[in-house]
Amino acid sequence: MTETTQKNLKSLYRILATGRRYEHALGILYFDLSTIAPSKAMSEEGETMSFFENQYFKLITSKKAKELIVYLHEHEEELEERDRVLAKLLYEEYSKTKNVTPATQLRWSRIYNKAYEDWLKAKNAGKFSKFEKSLSKVIAASKENVSLRENALPDLYDNLLNDCEKGMLTADLDRFFGELRDGLTELLGKIRSSGHVIRRDFLSRRVPVHKQREFSDYLLKPNGYDFDRGCITTTEHPFTSDIAKDDARVTTHYHENMFISNMYSVIHEGGHAIFMQNEPDEDYDHYINDSITNGMHESVSRFYENVIGRSEEYIHLIYPKVMELFGEELGDVSERELYEAVNIVEPSLIRTEVDEVTYGLHIVIRYEMEKMICSGKISVKEIPAAWNRLYGEYLGVTPKTDAEGVLQDVHWSSGFGYFPSYAIGNAYNAIYTQRMEKEIGLRKCIAAGDFGKIKNWMKDNVFAKANILEPKEWLRSITGKDLTASDFIAYLNDKYSGIYGF
Amino acid sequence: MTETTQKNLKSLYRILATGRRYEHALGILYFDLSTIAPSKAMSEEGETMSFFENQYFKLITSKKAKELIVYLHEHEEELEERDRVLAKLLYEEYSKTKNVTPATQLRWSRIYNKAYEDWLKAKNAGKFSKFEKSLSKVIAASKENVSLRENALPDLYDNLLNDCEKGMLTADLDRFFGELRDGLTELLGKIRSSGHVIRRDFLSRRVPVHKQREFSDYLLKPNGYDFDRGCITTTEHPFTSDIAKDDARVTTHYHENMFISNMYSVIHEGGHAIFMQNEPDEDYDHYINDSITNGMHESVSRFYENVIGRSEEYIHLIYPKVMELFGEELGDVSERELYEAVNIVEPSLIRTEVDEVTYGLHIVIRYEMEKMICSGKISVKEIPAAWNRLYGEYLGVTPKTDAEGVLQDVHWSSGFGYFPSYAIGNAYNAIYTQRMEKEIGLRKCIAAGDFGKIKNWMKDNVFAKANILEPKEWLRSITGKDLTASDFIAYLNDKYSGIYGF
Repeated sequence: MTETTQKNLKSLYRILATGRRYEHALGILYFDLSTIAPSKAMSEEGETMSFFENQYFKLITSKKAKELIVYLHEHEEELEERDRVLAKLLYEEYSKTKNVTPATQLRWSRIYNKAYEDWLKAKNAGKFSKFEKSLSKVIAASKENVSLRENALPDLYDNLLNDCEKGMLTADLDRFFGELRDGLTELLGKIRSSGHVIRRDFLSRRVPVHKQREFSDYLLKPNGYDFDRGCITTTEHPFTSDIAKDDARVTTHYHENMFISNMYSVIHEGGHAIFMQNEPDEDYDHYINDSITNGMHESVSRFYENVIGRSEEYIHLIYPKVMELFGEELGDVSERELYEAVNIVEPSLIRTEVDEVTYGLHIVIRYEMEKMICSGKISVKEIPAAWNRLYGEYLGVTPKTDAEGVLQDVHWSSGFGYFPSYAIGNAYNAIYTQRMEKEIGLRKCIAAGDFGKIKNWMKDNVFAKANILEPKEWLRSITGKDLTASDFIAYLNDKYSGIYGF
Repeated sequence: MTETTQKNLKSLYRILATGRRYEHALGILYFDLSTIAPSKAMSEEGETMSFFENQYFKLITSKKAKELIVYLHEHEEELEERDRVLAKLLYEEYSKTKNVTPATQLRWSRIYNKAYEDWLKAKNAGKFSKFEKSLSKVIAASKENVSLRENALPDLYDNLLNDCEKGMLTADLDRFFGELRDGLTELLGKIRSSGHVIRRDFLSRRVPVHKQREFSDYLLKPNGYDFDRGCITTTEHPFTSDIAKDDARVTTHYHENMFISNMYSVIHEGGHAIFMQNEPDEDYDHYINDSITNGMHESVSRFYENVIGRSEEYIHLIYPKVMELFGEELGDVSERELYEAVNIVEPSLIRTEVDEVTYGLHIVIRYEMEKMICSGKISVKEIPAAWNRLYGEYLGVTPKTDAEGVLQDVHWSSGFGYFPSYAIGNAYNAIYTQRMEKEIGLRKCIAAGDFGKIKNWMKDNVFAKANILEPKEWLRSITGKDLTASDFIAYLNDKYSGIYGF
């Protein structure tokens, strides 16, 4: 590396170190806004976030920063692996933002903040119409954003997909989701015609929140979540926040009449947090720790939630604690009944509450919706009707209000392209789980509560390259395979034949 | 007002509007750090706070800002009342900071953040020695800070007192605290020799936290706290945060074996929040809403806590709810027993948990400690011994560890001069409460649960001038009197003779 390159790299690091202060404050503000901020203070807090996002944007798109990014892009070959990744990521970002003025960025930022607020109001009122105006602005902002990019892909949605899951475009996803839809629909048919009935009366019994809180702590600790470097609190729509190197926070939502809702929220979000808490230190030192794609992350959270959390071995492991805590409420429930109930397959309305089989169909619906919205095939007004039509078609259910329909998810208040990652995440982990089973005996680990071994395997194989390789390369480096839904479908068939006996 | 003055005022407003963004973010960061931030993330979060404090400092001490402040100071006579107050406050601040460079400010900011962290660690470990180094740095920073001021008062402690309670200096406070100490000591003697024994066994009964949470909500709502413009959560050392115009947050701490600890924390902090939520809008619009002195604020919080919360009428009002919520734990406690127990007078160690009589002596001790520390009469190493000696002398008790001694309060991690305000607050409200009784029939209002009337009286008489007048003028404008401890001592004698029967 020449002296100039060394000097420029250092200068860039200094800017990024300051950038981290903004990310840190924005992370705390976002977390606050989504958890505890009072209703009448949200609008002002959104404004404050917009202000600091804008300050951050100014820093990272300053003349000095731009010069350094372009320089390092042109001298990439001199850099070591991680700095090369950094230079590449920054240059990609530079290509996206070089024509965006701070004033434009501030306008967008305000649109997204307002959209979040309006979404929340609309959801509480159960009325999509209250979100319509904001959503139109989000769509317009997405279009404007892509139109200002250098080297944008021709299709709007492809750009947004690429932002979330690099390299996975509609060409890949049409094939993947076709395969997934067919496999799931076939499996759903087998389950329906099996005639097996799963007991479910106890799932809606009242379980006091304070007992559920204790249960959350019990679930997260052994999985390897470090409470000294994170915390757990409540929110409307559970998420995990990567606030700082030693601060990965989990949120959940307690429903008194649906204790498994919190149970699987916590395990899922805990999976994200375990990922965040175990990224390589070197990635952090080289400022590339935030570049993981969503699908990689979801592969881990959904692995903890489903492959571990909904397995027979896991239910066997935690059953005694369930009885200890909820004996009063669930004393008459056997271990087998609990296992079957957390895996009951039943077409329903709310994505975050459903089983592993119908979940994929919820994502297929969102993928088709996003394609239609981004291509302009449907107008904003037509969104609820299209949503309800697809739910009828794929799942045979119809939302009674928009709150349990098109308004259930927060995602569209900040744009499009995220949902596919959930299904891709399932597919990723179904592929790499096979290797894990062979190498460390996954099922035995779960039965023994040996989550340390699982975490270590994840560190060595999943987390180690997740900040460096793009999804396609990354998956190949772990498994030697390309993205397919077939391993996931095979996993489900194997598991559910054991439950429904077909 | 000339055109130039108008223009300059507007320019200053613009800077202050930006400043509010920093205050808002810093408010959220401080709140986060004090409530939910994970232990290993605190240090980094402190660094981020220091960064933004420094950015804010640069903004407010920029060449442009300084010019505007000096200009408006010189053209004060052209301004309307509130802008004149603003100009005066900013000029005072300017005189304090004009010789402070951003680098110096950053250094101080880091000292205070580190001191908070070290205080927490020291308290948890029960060892003053772990806080010693940081406390020495806080003292040195205070000295340096005062030495850089224009027009500093000759005595270090007078400057710090003046920062907290403008115009109330050692000359006033020596007299006030002397009066207070004598009055309280005499009253304590009467109580002790009355021979009346108050039942207290139930005060340490286990009351589950989730029930106490419900109780907190019950207590705050009728007092007039607006939950849409605030929230309540837990912390180590309860405080209230004035985060934004529509965001005044209350914190508390739940002790399972001391339910009245949370009860009076919540009522006290709720009093602060009610003040914050009911300041005149015009004060906010003129950027003078943050200039209230601590004593004025404490007069309100301690009014809600004691004059209302520990009154016979209030206990009568809430007794049915107490039985409804805590019937299982406190079913055998009569209304009279509860009233006497929340007023039990007993020399003890922890300031925030004590009765109204000994409370003042806890403050006298801190006042004497701060005087000794600031004058250099005792070294940092000698602080715990001096503390323990004074506790023995005034209250006849001795801390077993520093955690229940000199480390119990967070305040010294950010400097000196605050404690006197608590006692001054008591004195203020004892003076203006007499007027309230005459004008709206305070006791009847409490008995009827008519807290709206009380809040309105506060708005018209206490909050309305609290951002405009300095404490001495303010007190005179409400009551026509000067600061004295005698009304407070009279109030206590009247109340406690009814309880202890002397």
